[in-house]
Amino acid sequence: MERAINVELGTRSYRVRIGAGALGSLGAAVAGLGGATAAAVVSDDRVAALYARRAIDSLAASGVRAGLITFPAGEASKTLATASGVLDALFAQRPAVDRSAVVVALGGGVTGDLAGFVAAVALRGLRFFQCPTTLLADVDSSVGGKTGVDHPAGKNLIGAFHQPSGVLIDVAALPTLPPAELRGGLAECVKHGVIRDEALLDFIERNAGAILACDADVMTELVARNVAIKAAVVSADERESGQRAHLNFGHTIGHAIETLAGYGSVTHGQAVSLGMVAAMHLAVRRGLLGQCEADRVERLLGALGLPLRRAGLDFAALLPIMRHDKKARAGQVRMVLPSRLGAVDVHDDVTTDELSAAAGYLAG
Amino acid sequence: MERAINVELGTRSYRVRIGAGALGSLGAAVAGLGGATAAAVVSDDRVAALYARRAIDSLAASGVRAGLITFPAGEASKTLATASGVLDALFAQRPAVDRSAVVVALGGGVTGDLAGFVAAVALRGLRFFQCPTTLLADVDSSVGGKTGVDHPAGKNLIGAFHQPSGVLIDVAALPTLPPAELRGGLAECVKHGVIRDEALLDFIERNAGAILACDADVMTELVARNVAIKAAVVSADERESGQRAHLNFGHTIGHAIETLAGYGSVTHGQAVSLGMVAAMHLAVRRGLLGQCEADRVERLLGALGLPLRRAGLDFAALLPIMRHDKKARAGQVRMVLPSRLGAVDVHDDVTTDELSAAAGYLAG
Repeated sequence: MERAINVELGTRSYRVRIGAGALGSLGAAVAGLGGATAAAVVSDDRVAALYARRAIDSLAASGVRAGLITFPAGEASKTLATASGVLDALFAQRPAVDRSAVVVALGGGVTGDLAGFVAAVALRGLRFFQCPTTLLADVDSSVGGKTGVDHPAGKNLIGAFHQPSGVLIDVAALPTLPPAELRGGLAECVKHGVIRDEALLDFIERNAGAILACDADVMTELVARNVAIKAAVVSADERESGQRAHLNFGHTIGHAIETLAGYGSVTHGQAVSLGMVAAMHLAVRRGLLGQCEADRVERLLGALGLPLRRAGLDFAALLPIMRHDKKARAGQVRMVLPSRLGAVDVHDDVTTDELSAAAGYLAG
Repeated sequence: MERAINVELGTRSYRVRIGAGALGSLGAAVAGLGGATAAAVVSDDRVAALYARRAIDSLAASGVRAGLITFPAGEASKTLATASGVLDALFAQRPAVDRSAVVVALGGGVTGDLAGFVAAVALRGLRFFQCPTTLLADVDSSVGGKTGVDHPAGKNLIGAFHQPSGVLIDVAALPTLPPAELRGGLAECVKHGVIRDEALLDFIERNAGAILACDADVMTELVARNVAIKAAVVSADERESGQRAHLNFGHTIGHAIETLAGYGSVTHGQAVSLGMVAAMHLAVRRGLLGQCEADRVERLLGALGLPLRRAGLDFAALLPIMRHDKKARAGQVRMVLPSRLGAVDVHDDVTTDELSAAAGYLAG
């Protein structure tokens, strides 16, 4: 079973292919872009040990000479300093690496964001190819063209919009994921359901067991449904001036919880789960969403092993972080709230009292 | 006397305003972009000492709070490390610096390229405003959206296309330029004449004295004519897939001479002058250009104080540099050759013998 989805962006459109064993067709896919004789596979040391050989062999079999560039696994590597080191390694392969070269991101979200950023700024833009290996990267970061690195002042503060030339998602990589990472991806899947597609929530509810067991066909279908939603949002609003903001559902409070806890001590997926619970509570309080819908989503998040409450959450510490969020303007917190399951709106009038109540709900 | 030229790029179109004292209207221009409450003026320490106060006061008078970020003057500062330091200083101004902030590049080409790159990658793209203070930046780098920094492996290897939101050219800054820097800009002016506009060559010939004396009205007219040419080329081909390559006339051999000499020991303008002389010689040899036209341009370059020959030029050292140029593909040198004064074509079939003859002409 293989699925393919087009991301429609005019001359920058690209194809996302999803299936078990898809990594074996990387060479053919990159060669199919045209003109590529050299590639650089960028990967963290953990993922490289598992999959780099297969990626490089596949490229070589299609006549694309590929070097491997690795960096230490973990969010701590997502810095301008790491990007600088990857650029050094890339330019050490000149003149083979010229404007026709392709950067292949092989790994999770950190790798995709970092390698994509390197591709965006190397020779003012090289083509790049996404080969995500985590569910979170599969359904979220590998599609859409957001690239970047973190800065001590905040996550993703340095980056660029740079669309990939293609995405290849091998769901056979998913069973080796630590359970916490799988759940992180599932939080984004639930998010997609809440913002665009109630039927996706049905699908996850019905198949929760097979999903947690990483059944190949079910994961292919799950990823395809999620990529289709992300692709539609990105096609309609590439640069986040309008509906792309809907993807931030659960992220305003979620990012703040992540920052407050320090990167790594709460996973992104856990933080987004908490952020969605808080946002839904706020939506129920405003009379936008029924309590019954909010409860249904909470139940689903719980069934997937995601957290619904955070004891001891410190609202006084949380508030300034939300006010300084990259998406905030002049200190006004911006939140995405559901009006029903499958539809959301952006709200720029969220009050401190409401935020306090939402945080209190999580803490309780 | 003030002139204005639009750079037509659809939704990313912008206006270039040229005149003596134009810097005084920076605040009004930035405020006119809409939504900007904070700005960061990026400048090297030398230019900052001369003009930063005026820029910041003008911004403040229009209600735009501006911080100043400086770095050491010189091409050696055009690195990813300097960009990283400027980003640190920029993010230290958060939350005042948010997505509505404007980066103002105040200075020469290094400042414009560096600050433009910072703007391109800060929060995945802030608006930026170019205030060039050298003739080279006025007529070349301030228009067109090429931003970037150097890497030990080559110039401008790290960068992005990021169009400014506006350009303000104050020709009153030109009389303080060292003569060598003025000449550097004039080499690019002659280049524009050769590739697009024989009448511009007439204008420079007729006004050489007033130009070298930096007469304000003549400089305003000179800059306006050059910006108009650059703007037309960039509008037709923003990303350098076609005719924008014409702007590389004189740069294939010129860049190689610059690299061989080590950045700084030959100025960019001197290198481009030599590169144009060599390219014209090659064009004459091919029967594309008349000897009389080539001689006329050589005379003009000489009258402007630009070099026409380089004794001891080492072709064996030059050739591999040209073959590894960012614009070369698979080691084939690409050159822009005039077919008459005012028109050029790209040639991908230049032989080693021809390059050797051109280098020999310069050395002789």
